[in-house]
Amino acid sequence: MPVDPLRVISDLEELRALTADENGAQRIAWSPTWLKAREWFQGKLKGLPVEHHYDAAGNSWTTLPGDADRALVLGSHLDSVPNGGWLDGCLGVAAGLEVLRGFTEDFHGRPPITIRLVDWADEEGARFGRSLFGSSAFAGTHTIAVDRVRNDRDGVRLEQALRLCGVDVEKIGDAGVERKNAAAYLELHIEQGPVLENMHLPLGVVLGTKGVERHAITFHGQEAHSGSTPMTVRRDALAAAAKLALEIRPIAKKHPDAVATMGSVKTFPGIVTAVVGRCETTLDMRDLDVEVLASMLSEALAASERFAAEEGCTVDWSRIWSIEPISFSPRLIEFCDEAVRETAGISHRLPSGPLHDAAEVARTGIPTVMMFTQSLAGLSHNKAEDTRAEDLKAAVVAFDRLARKTLKWLSV
Amino acid sequence: MPVDPLRVISDLEELRALTADENGAQRIAWSPTWLKAREWFQGKLKGLPVEHHYDAAGNSWTTLPGDADRALVLGSHLDSVPNGGWLDGCLGVAAGLEVLRGFTEDFHGRPPITIRLVDWADEEGARFGRSLFGSSAFAGTHTIAVDRVRNDRDGVRLEQALRLCGVDVEKIGDAGVERKNAAAYLELHIEQGPVLENMHLPLGVVLGTKGVERHAITFHGQEAHSGSTPMTVRRDALAAAAKLALEIRPIAKKHPDAVATMGSVKTFPGIVTAVVGRCETTLDMRDLDVEVLASMLSEALAASERFAAEEGCTVDWSRIWSIEPISFSPRLIEFCDEAVRETAGISHRLPSGPLHDAAEVARTGIPTVMMFTQSLAGLSHNKAEDTRAEDLKAAVVAFDRLARKTLKWLSV
Repeated sequence: MPVDPLRVISDLEELRALTADENGAQRIAWSPTWLKAREWFQGKLKGLPVEHHYDAAGNSWTTLPGDADRALVLGSHLDSVPNGGWLDGCLGVAAGLEVLRGFTEDFHGRPPITIRLVDWADEEGARFGRSLFGSSAFAGTHTIAVDRVRNDRDGVRLEQALRLCGVDVEKIGDAGVERKNAAAYLELHIEQGPVLENMHLPLGVVLGTKGVERHAITFHGQEAHSGSTPMTVRRDALAAAAKLALEIRPIAKKHPDAVATMGSVKTFPGIVTAVVGRCETTLDMRDLDVEVLASMLSEALAASERFAAEEGCTVDWSRIWSIEPISFSPRLIEFCDEAVRETAGISHRLPSGPLHDAAEVARTGIPTVMMFTQSLAGLSHNKAEDTRAEDLKAAVVAFDRLARKTLKWLSV
Repeated sequence: MPVDPLRVISDLEELRALTADENGAQRIAWSPTWLKAREWFQGKLKGLPVEHHYDAAGNSWTTLPGDADRALVLGSHLDSVPNGGWLDGCLGVAAGLEVLRGFTEDFHGRPPITIRLVDWADEEGARFGRSLFGSSAFAGTHTIAVDRVRNDRDGVRLEQALRLCGVDVEKIGDAGVERKNAAAYLELHIEQGPVLENMHLPLGVVLGTKGVERHAITFHGQEAHSGSTPMTVRRDALAAAAKLALEIRPIAKKHPDAVATMGSVKTFPGIVTAVVGRCETTLDMRDLDVEVLASMLSEALAASERFAAEEGCTVDWSRIWSIEPISFSPRLIEFCDEAVRETAGISHRLPSGPLHDAAEVARTGIPTVMMFTQSLAGLSHNKAEDTRAEDLKAAVVAFDRLARKTLKWLSV
């Protein structure tokens, strides 16, 4: 039976009515509204010949057993940021469910291999600042020691919030057992950026997730009176930072997919009548190629030191966080490309700037790929997040095609 | 009798012991410590044939009556910022007192014209944000409607704090009567900047106070995800602001004494993972020439609009405050130049970037000039503020010479 894209849209609208308010989606992981969304999902499984359980990290697993134990895994996440959109995460779960329904009918309840659908727990990390929570437990890259003591804004500990949802933080590593037999992983997601829209394309093939280098950079100059200090003797920390804010752009633009962002600038003393004595900035650089990312970082470092010297300042760097680039499976990228071309006539391959659960899965060596559908105006994490209905429909059809190609490959 | 510079230094040390703690001077206007400083000053008048009173704005007037009513006025301020230095303001009062002592002896208590010493009330505006309080009341440029409702950090109203010091805010304009007979005004102050130190000069002649244009400038771009937004489609408000932060420098450097400062930059949302959607900055521009200042302002305005357009942003400007440049008396500048040369062998003329009470006096048309003495490392408003003892001594001697030249001129 072909998939019914309208049923996916209708499911998403149902979920929105249940879990959003006037400010947007409120499915923050470990919250009552999130639990309500998961209950809604379980309700959708009625009548399907599937098994359902939550693993030790709170990931929700729905399994359609096949002739072989080896499993094709489809997945995404139902949790959202506060005041989030109606598609981020749940599109992939709803589309995966529809593909599962189709397989159930086509194979009379018994496909040649096992099909699984996972709803990862806490992809967003919105409440405790730990994103990719469930998928990192699955992958064995979780960090219990750090996570155990995380607090939310109200001082509730992560450990405590998880216990209320039936998850023991000490045991989340046991979710690794779900890796057994997983032979491929597919994830459909909205792009959350403007690339496909600018190219007038409904769908894209994701090559992998970019590596990230995230740093705090502070320039130290000399605070001075704005009226009595001649221009020629100033040691203006803001001037050095401004030069870097502009220089990171040509550094990134040398590479087609690289990005570099100075997202925060703080000036001290930060008053109208004083030359800036200290300027604190942040830098976020991303690329899919580990060598490109390393060279961008070293260029930015050298530039910051040059600008500091030019302005009579000093500079220090402190790494906030980093992750290596993760490439998806070449074979699945080919399948995804075919599926997109067969559906939309034209395909485009692009890296993902944002991270996704698929990156954690890919790190374990399980062949993985993602498909993107266009985001209007690149907006996400916002109630204005949207995608044209025709593009959503194309996404469901293309994702089903990708799943069938992968199933066929795994069944040989 | 020649002035005794060591007595001035000893007076300043006495005042410091009385009104400073381990963090610096605490003579904040309208505070008990400030009143203690003024009481100390009155104690220093014992035995001198002078009249003393406070005017309607709280300015402290010490008068040595002469044969003629026309008066030579010397002045400065005893109030300090919190954690201030030992020289800012009080050097001018202590040096003025020493000159007054010398005149008293030389003219056997009756100089040919009247000599007055004023300690202006609340030059710094440290507590209520209204600087040049007493001198603006003297000049008739005070702003009762605005000042009446000012609050300090603890919510105490200016009106209330003044009443505790015997000043009725409704009547401060009556201080204008003190303008009567004032024929010249002289003020000695530390430079509070690095110009004289860099030239290895102990003393300088102040040409006037620079005009100030102070503006809030906000760039509006588009907040976007740092990972998913390609460099080419960004509308980065920080990039436009960074260009302006750098461009104001060549704009100011075209003119020998002009300064331009971006003292505060705030980024919104201001997080490491988002392109800056809004960037709020401040600009402070100063020059002694009203036309130079106007042309700098219009160049900065045009540059900001050009940069906004280049970055796909918009920009808006809002004036925070401005004041026109104020030039001192050409004749008194000549006297001051002679006095400095006779004392130090070499003189240098410079504008003042910071404002001073002398600017308010000059606005009334009373011939006015200031003398600067070197500040070490340009530091002020800080307990580290200092000047070499030899420079302080030279300053007292030169200021006495300036007063004598002015007295002679007024006595003709």
